[in-house]
Amino acid sequence: MTYCVGIEVDEGLVFAADTRTNASLDDVRVHRKLHVFEYPGQAAYVLMAAGNLATTQLLVSRLGRDADEGRAPNLRDITHLFEAAEYVGQLLVDSQVHSNHSEHGHDGVNTQATLIFGGQIAGERPGLYMIYPLGNAIAASPETPYLQIGESKYGKPILDRILSPATHLEDAARTAIVSLDSTIRSNLSVGLPIDLALLRDGELRIGQQLRLGADSALYADIHQNWSRRLEQAVDALPRFPWETLDR
Amino acid sequence: MTYCVGIEVDEGLVFAADTRTNASLDDVRVHRKLHVFEYPGQAAYVLMAAGNLATTQLLVSRLGRDADEGRAPNLRDITHLFEAAEYVGQLLVDSQVHSNHSEHGHDGVNTQATLIFGGQIAGERPGLYMIYPLGNAIAASPETPYLQIGESKYGKPILDRILSPATHLEDAARTAIVSLDSTIRSNLSVGLPIDLALLRDGELRIGQQLRLGADSALYADIHQNWSRRLEQAVDALPRFPWETLDR
Repeated sequence: MTYCVGIEVDEGLVFAADTRTNASLDDVRVHRKLHVFEYPGQAAYVLMAAGNLATTQLLVSRLGRDADEGRAPNLRDITHLFEAAEYVGQLLVDSQVHSNHSEHGHDGVNTQATLIFGGQIAGERPGLYMIYPLGNAIAASPETPYLQIGESKYGKPILDRILSPATHLEDAARTAIVSLDSTIRSNLSVGLPIDLALLRDGELRIGQQLRLGADSALYADIHQNWSRRLEQAVDALPRFPWETLDR
Repeated sequence: MTYCVGIEVDEGLVFAADTRTNASLDDVRVHRKLHVFEYPGQAAYVLMAAGNLATTQLLVSRLGRDADEGRAPNLRDITHLFEAAEYVGQLLVDSQVHSNHSEHGHDGVNTQATLIFGGQIAGERPGLYMIYPLGNAIAASPETPYLQIGESKYGKPILDRILSPATHLEDAARTAIVSLDSTIRSNLSVGLPIDLALLRDGELRIGQQLRLGADSALYADIHQNWSRRLEQAVDALPRFPWETLDR
């Protein structure tokens, strides 16, 4: 399993991903699921992946090589973000097929992956897409300014309650960390460290990129203090009719 | 689907359940899933059910009749809560079989149900159990002082962060409402009104019982204000290293 969340607010984009991969409960490793593609002055993208690791590593390698070698299309030269999402979707479908070399079909192994892909191309607004194993894509919207892949349920309520297009970029990033932290607590297959990337509108580069482990002071602070803040929030809720006012 | 949560704290027990049942997306109704059994001075119980409605209604009817007619065992006369949970489990297994009158097996319809059952018998501590379709049961524990059935994921993080055996009974009830509210927001098959019941240690009766609908001032207050309280909680989280202190 995996949990990744991408957020689109007016100020830019936030990407957050866990790093745990597991083949079964007794084969657990740390692998990066958040990948940055930067072409200074032209475009900046972040790709996050849930699903087959061989497929997504193949995809990431191809995306980089296409741009390095100037093949058409490629992430450096595409001029519209939706076309970039379509290109990534096509390459995803191709990678799903090619990551299985068996002549006899899939042999029970699922090589599919689901992606969150977002970024900004010079002259355009930032944008955020979810790309399905079929290669098709949906965009985040002002009503639901976030997209999730993997174990999405535990971390969804906090996103619903906090996020709107007007949310500050750093507040959106803190909300993403809380959402990840809630999920890590409840699903063994989602684990630390957390990769975090922020793309501020107009900067055309990933302005901030962090890896937050259990030893990170910031993460420890959020992890330890969030419960106390929630207790205060519960404490501030209205009393039942039968409770005395001075309790 | 359904979402019910039972909480055991030092002060007593809290039970909260939604009321939506659906056969499919276009066959949605309101049915009570929280059932009270009170025998003043002797014992008080609450039963909540997720799963086949015919099964649980049959079970509830039988539990009441056994006590009314003084059959052995019955909820009025059992002297240990764990024996009551075993008795309910046996009756559940029986009801699952009897709610299908077909001679040809289950015909693809699942008559299973899962229960949360808790209460207090005179002379004992209150207790809380989850009863599985097999009829076996597990108890809540001080480390995890709550049990959930149905759509449990959306509403779990708030329970994990707030609840401990020392939590006040009414605070636990407010937490349960927030947990229900988060779930109702995310899963169409979980819906208002919410049934809520509180059993205070030693009272041997359900001291408080409420139905909270969209028109309830208390629910509306919690629903509308919780997001604002969470925003304040996010706002109080530590800043990233690159943020100016005076933002």
